[in-house]
Amino acid sequence: MKKVLIINGPNLNMLGQREPEIYGNKTLEDIKQDCIKKGGELGFAITFKQTNKEYEIVEWIQETDSDAIIINAAAYTHTSVAIYDALKNYNKLVVEVHLSNTYAREEFRHKSYISPIASGIICGFGAKGYLMALDGLV
Amino acid sequence: MKKVLIINGPNLNMLGQREPEIYGNKTLEDIKQDCIKKGGELGFAITFKQTNKEYEIVEWIQETDSDAIIINAAAYTHTSVAIYDALKNYNKLVVEVHLSNTYAREEFRHKSYISPIASGIICGFGAKGYLMALDGLV
Amino acid sequence: MKKVLIINGPNLNMLGQREPEIYGNKTLEDIKQDCIKKGGELGFAITFKQTNKEYEIVEWIQETDSDAIIINAAAYTHTSVAIYDALKNYNKLVVEVHLSNTYAREEFRHKSYISPIASGIICGFGAKGYLMALDGLV
Amino acid sequence: MKKVLIINGPNLNMLGQREPEIYGNKTLEDIKQDCIKKGGELGFAITFKQTNKEYEIVEWIQETDSDAIIINAAAYTHTSVAIYDALKNYNKLVVEVHLSNTYAREEFRHKSYISPIASGIICGFGAKGYLMALDGLV
Amino acid sequence: MKKVLIINGPNLNMLGQREPEIYGNKTLEDIKQDCIKKGGELGFAITFKQTNKEYEIVEWIQETDSDAIIINAAAYTHTSVAIYDALKNYNKLVVEVHLSNTYAREEFRHKSYISPIASGIICGFGAKGYLMALDGLV
Amino acid sequence: MKKVLIINGPNLNMLGQREPEIYGNKTLEDIKQDCIKKGGELGFAITFKQTNKEYEIVEWIQETDSDAIIINAAAYTHTSVAIYDALKNYNKLVVEVHLSNTYAREEFRHKSYISPIASGIICGFGAKGYLMALDGLV
Amino acid sequence: MKKVLIINGPNLNMLGQREPEIYGNKTLEDIKQDCIKKGGELGFAITFKQTNKEYEIVEWIQETDSDAIIINAAAYTHTSVAIYDALKNYNKLVVEVHLSNTYAREEFRHKSYISPIASGIICGFGAKGYLMALDGLV
Amino acid sequence: MKKVLIINGPNLNMLGQREPEIYGNKTLEDIKQDCIKKGGELGFAITFKQTNKEYEIVEWIQETDSDAIIINAAAYTHTSVAIYDALKNYNKLVVEVHLSNTYAREEFRHKSYISPIASGIICGFGAKGYLMALDGLV
Amino acid sequence: MKKVLIINGPNLNMLGQREPEIYGNKTLEDIKQDCIKKGGELGFAITFKQTNKEYEIVEWIQETDSDAIIINAAAYTHTSVAIYDALKNYNKLVVEVHLSNTYAREEFRHKSYISPIASGIICGFGAKGYLMALDGLV
Amino acid sequence: MKKVLIINGPNLNMLGQREPEIYGNKTLEDIKQDCIKKGGELGFAITFKQTNKEYEIVEWIQETDSDAIIINAAAYTHTSVAIYDALKNYNKLVVEVHLSNTYAREEFRHKSYISPIASGIICGFGAKGYLMALDGLV
Amino acid sequence: MKKVLIINGPNLNMLGQREPEIYGNKTLEDIKQDCIKKGGELGFAITFKQTNKEYEIVEWIQETDSDAIIINAAAYTHTSVAIYDALKNYNKLVVEVHLSNTYAREEFRHKSYISPIASGIICGFGAKGYLMALDGLV
Amino acid sequence: MKKVLIINGPNLNMLGQREPEIYGNKTLEDIKQDCIKKGGELGFAITFKQTNKEYEIVEWIQETDSDAIIINAAAYTHTSVAIYDALKNYNKLVVEVHLSNTYAREEFRHKSYISPIASGIICGFGAKGYLMALDGLV
Repeated sequence: MKKVLIINGPNLNMLGQREPEIYGNKTLEDIKQDCIKKGGELGFAITFKQTNKEYEIVEWIQETDSDAIIINAAAYTHTSVAIYDALKNYNKLVVEVHLSNTYAREEFRHKSYISPIASGIICGFGAKGYLMALDGLV
Repeated sequence: MKKVLIINGPNLNMLGQREPEIYGNKTLEDIKQDCIKKGGELGFAITFKQTNKEYEIVEWIQETDSDAIIINAAAYTHTSVAIYDALKNYNKLVVEVHLSNTYAREEFRHKSYISPIASGIICGFGAKGYLMALDGLV
Repeated sequence: MKKVLIINGPNLNMLGQREPEIYGNKTLEDIKQDCIKKGGELGFAITFKQTNKEYEIVEWIQETDSDAIIINAAAYTHTSVAIYDALKNYNKLVVEVHLSNTYAREEFRHKSYISPIASGIICGFGAKGYLMALDGLV
Repeated sequence: MKKVLIINGPNLNMLGQREPEIYGNKTLEDIKQDCIKKGGELGFAITFKQTNKEYEIVEWIQETDSDAIIINAAAYTHTSVAIYDALKNYNKLVVEVHLSNTYAREEFRHKSYISPIASGIICGFGAKGYLMALDGLV
Repeated sequence: MKKVLIINGPNLNMLGQREPEIYGNKTLEDIKQDCIKKGGELGFAITFKQTNKEYEIVEWIQETDSDAIIINAAAYTHTSVAIYDALKNYNKLVVEVHLSNTYAREEFRHKSYISPIASGIICGFGAKGYLMALDGLV
Repeated sequence: MKKVLIINGPNLNMLGQREPEIYGNKTLEDIKQDCIKKGGELGFAITFKQTNKEYEIVEWIQETDSDAIIINAAAYTHTSVAIYDALKNYNKLVVEVHLSNTYAREEFRHKSYISPIASGIICGFGAKGYLMALDGLV
Repeated sequence: MKKVLIINGPNLNMLGQREPEIYGNKTLEDIKQDCIKKGGELGFAITFKQTNKEYEIVEWIQETDSDAIIINAAAYTHTSVAIYDALKNYNKLVVEVHLSNTYAREEFRHKSYISPIASGIICGFGAKGYLMALDGLV
Repeated sequence: MKKVLIINGPNLNMLGQREPEIYGNKTLEDIKQDCIKKGGELGFAITFKQTNKEYEIVEWIQETDSDAIIINAAAYTHTSVAIYDALKNYNKLVVEVHLSNTYAREEFRHKSYISPIASGIICGFGAKGYLMALDGLV
Repeated sequence: MKKVLIINGPNLNMLGQREPEIYGNKTLEDIKQDCIKKGGELGFAITFKQTNKEYEIVEWIQETDSDAIIINAAAYTHTSVAIYDALKNYNKLVVEVHLSNTYAREEFRHKSYISPIASGIICGFGAKGYLMALDGLV
Repeated sequence: MKKVLIINGPNLNMLGQREPEIYGNKTLEDIKQDCIKKGGELGFAITFKQTNKEYEIVEWIQETDSDAIIINAAAYTHTSVAIYDALKNYNKLVVEVHLSNTYAREEFRHKSYISPIASGIICGFGAKGYLMALDGLV
Repeated sequence: MKKVLIINGPNLNMLGQREPEIYGNKTLEDIKQDCIKKGGELGFAITFKQTNKEYEIVEWIQETDSDAIIINAAAYTHTSVAIYDALKNYNKLVVEVHLSNTYAREEFRHKSYISPIASGIICGFGAKGYLMALDGLV
Repeated sequence: MKKVLIINGPNLNMLGQREPEIYGNKTLEDIKQDCIKKGGELGFAITFKQTNKEYEIVEWIQETDSDAIIINAAAYTHTSVAIYDALKNYNKLVVEVHLSNTYAREEFRHKSYISPIASGIICGFGAKGYLMALDGLV
């Protein structure tokens, strides 16, 4: 059974708790459950984490023995060379996910430090993007 | 049954015919069959087209009565305001697909005229990206 | 009697057919009739054409024996060096028309390859801009 | 009867007095008479003014009770945020006119602070541009 | 008793007279009275002026014997090197005030020729910003 | 009684301890006491915090039930999209404070990720800026 | 006998027909005959084509079984990613030719999408450049 | 006897009155007397003026019948298209003078709207620069 | 005996553990031992630390009583204004070290927030760079 | 008999001596002999020179009485205004040659100070480019 | 008696010898004689030199015991950091002279490495500029 | 015994002779002696040279049979493509040294043509940097 680490960056812990009319009612816990269920169907053991700490993302990437990483680094996508360096060292499959279409938002969200090292990118599909990423790993 | 129009831009007709060691052995016809099969499972009637002509893409978008468009505009992604305008008029669901991760390639491929109006973007998953896009439409 | 060629670029064939609440109910056919009528009053023989094809605009400019060209190149305004080159060879009067005020829209619409070789520019007056252009030719 | 205020910016008082071989023999007074005549035909009461003073343009815009403004701000077009702010407050119809095609001239003339708030723009038609602007207001 | 000169730039004379739903009902005269009252409490003799003229701001700065200047140069903030030079010569305390948050508005409002020589900057607090500036001078 | 959360970013814990001839003798503790006192007068319950951790600022913003935030994010002002995102979710009143006039310092300090979502900005007034910010909240 | 495909882009069909005092009296047909003659001497079978259609250039490149391509893409040189992609797939010898010295002309002609994949570039030698390109292929 | 108009821009009226340790004790009146004396030696009738008003500089240029203009436009050097346009219409000899070396000062002083139309430029020689400019006109 | 604090930034804890063929077999612990030995020879008491946390680097700099800092901030070199501010307050000797030649790598590594305040910079010498830095402090 | 001066810039003396597997076995002396032979066939008296000195290139251009110059300025192509000025004074035929395709190499090689004044440009054909340049002069 | 070194850069030795209709009939020798004569009147011992060699200018500046340098570095003005460094070490009076108005010419001539360290700049006065520079040194 | 060539660029011959309070009393001869002594200890035969001539640096690099080059190209660091090309051909170890921290100085010193091909870079350690470079070669 393949292991997949799913990393969620800053502010994603707030999903579904504030402004549900904008971001939907799904909490990050809901997405986690969806991923675990989907992972089960696909034969993936899912580890699903969230943090607001840049260094914690770095260290999760350093320490993982997973076969692939799905990462929604949120704000750190646009600013973190440290995560970029960690992912470069990781040397296995990386998929970048964003809930919204970052290319239709503020100019500074058009720059991603993760895209150059990701195998695949999925954005704009909301919570479903995570499940598509799992599918993409097959 | 929902209708989905899948549009492929310039040079994609060459898939699988040249440099199979790079682009794989899958031809565009193979991808088409995969999409039709997957569409069948999801309840989508698929129309799958390719052209090297910018205007033909514009006109397919103008004339379609589909419920959604999946578009891999290839080179025109980066240069065509005409396709951008057509898609803006279309006013229904648009998904942008790229076989390769365009953000890990030449600088000029980082600019997409389609991204600002796409609901979702999928890139880097090869032929599978089309099937993921269909899933994403559900 | 002077001959005037009026060229309309991509997506202008959709005028009045989609989103009439935005673009008005006037179709391109209506504008054509208005132009022919106005041309008649001013002593101009009007040829009024639309195409979504960049090369067709190039060839209409190459082949015309008109005394002046009124051109709304739409999306190609911002991207076509080929039309620019054709107009430079044309060597007679050119008037650039846009329905909307392109300078109040997306940044990429602020660049026009036609403006440097146009004698006059009219934008933001909607369908009326064509009639004003005819007036301007007198 | 609708009121139209026509504002002319710096150096336009020199029209027809210097270098007639370039700018033609028409003085600003001639253009004024043409506008008043044309305005009469169209049912517009014309107020036609010129100034070299940035603040005077600002104050004319603040104080006017006209139904529309036609403005050729000349050099201030490219530098005056103050006029931009005054026009934004004005909240009625504004048409921007330039005698020459500013987009075929120096790079710094390609930037206009008036265009983003103008309804329509006319440039390159010489003195006739004013009359076309009046027509455009109908 | 310390003297404070408060300078208001172009279009600020329109405050409260147009679009009260946006800019509030407070006129510049109201702000003046608030400032004089607050100044009285703080021991400041207030001179409160407004002009649409760039040169008048320059000359007020040249001629004043005030101990400090509070300046809302409005549009000239973004374009006037002349005011910058006058303030540099002034050599006493300068506070920059803006009614709105200029950094949340058009790109060209992010550049201020006054900020580099101001001791303090207050923006976004509306009319209250003037009173805060007086407080800040204590 | 309204609650106000005052957040201080990296290196502000060093205030008054190093280079007092430059930054003054006031420690952050002094500023805290001033704020609590001033808050008391204005009817605000003040929570005053400092951290060198980007994520802690993010989490304080996520978790607070305050009615307003006053934030001096120091160095993170110029680099943190994560704080920007947290403040956007916060949806209540935000005031940005800087001790020094950041616009008179290094180029990279002219960019603030907080300004676009702040209601008001105060900079260059030193420790007093906090008290002015409290006043501004009234 | 080696096969050489010579491709000419938009507006080159006008050579010799308009403004002979500028572009010379040589028509594209004359250049074709010169190339065929020169090709004969060098042992090359020449196919010489012109089109105003971007997609036709793309398709000629896709379909050719020639051993080398000489391409004067004219205006598309500066704008066509589609031709760039087609040439990249071609994987044999490509020579870029321009009649005029594009580096002594408008700024936008300094950017070529063909140069990065051409083996050799010849510009400024007029019609003779084609013959030099043939020589260069030997 | 040739006529020379010498124009001084904003803040130059303050010369010698503030910060004499920096700008010297020479007032603009002193410079005027030096110029008149030097002009007398060279056979020039000198008109020497100063204003803080952009429009007044424009109008002096429009109205003068002098044979040459020496202009120190001070701050307006860097911002005034209106003065540029007036000087272009003037069509006689123009010399640009600056007291300080503007190229060793702030970045925005490196741009001059006057230099492109000046015959000669003198900067960094202080008050003496005016006399050198008169010499240069001989 | 002088005290030297050596700070290592994110991902440097992975040295020697992943991709030894690229980064060599030396672990950070090896480098630490080398530094302590070299420090002993030079009369320096070495404190050698690594962290993936930006704030921890900031706090180590705030709290240290060392006579000099040698810092390899790794990824934070290119993004951290917070570390820059902390080093500016430190006011003693700072040496910047990089294992690789950052100027021969990605464009974003050419920007260092540490270089402007470092006394000396050493890059490209691998692990040896630390020992050279110690030598440089003598 | 026409005279042709062929100038070679810095490092071209190393041709064929270092890294023959990259640059080929041809030395500059070989190219010289090829040029003299080809020149003889075409009726050109060839002077063929190399130098690493910028000033020597400048002086050869100043002093030559040749009818044309073929120049491969190598590195100075991208940096020398002095050679540009000398060639501008030369006023006869200039052909620019590069062994490699400079447009497929480092960004700074895309800028040529020679191209704007060259009649023709040849690059990417290796040593053969010199012979093609001679042909182009006929 | 004060010593003045006058340095002339590349291509200035060609003055008066080529294109006299453009640059005048004055040779550099003529200018030298004018300078020596003028120097005699002003009490300056003149050393007047020209070279096409960048390093020679550097060395003349290093070795001179003159009290002032007048330098027309011609092309090296725009490219030579070496001359800039030499002049910075020189630490006495430097005047920059250009025959033509470099600010009315090519964009790359707007950048001068000499201006930031020159006391005064004179351009556009032709040969007379040298004499004005001598006057300026008094 | 390994050979090391140490190259010093323009103006470094002035070390210790001018402004000793700034650059120290060490002459280049002193540094040479230090290097020879240190080289002796490390088993390196040192050749130590200085020149103000760009071409001489190029030629020393071409002709050397040394095993490594230490280069302080001074001003040419920032402008010389010719030295860059020579070093690329050299193909052995290159170390870049600067006396001062060039990244804390003028913007144009942040660009180095040598850094991309250097193995290691040392700057800001003054004369000691040379000895550290020798150590780094071991």
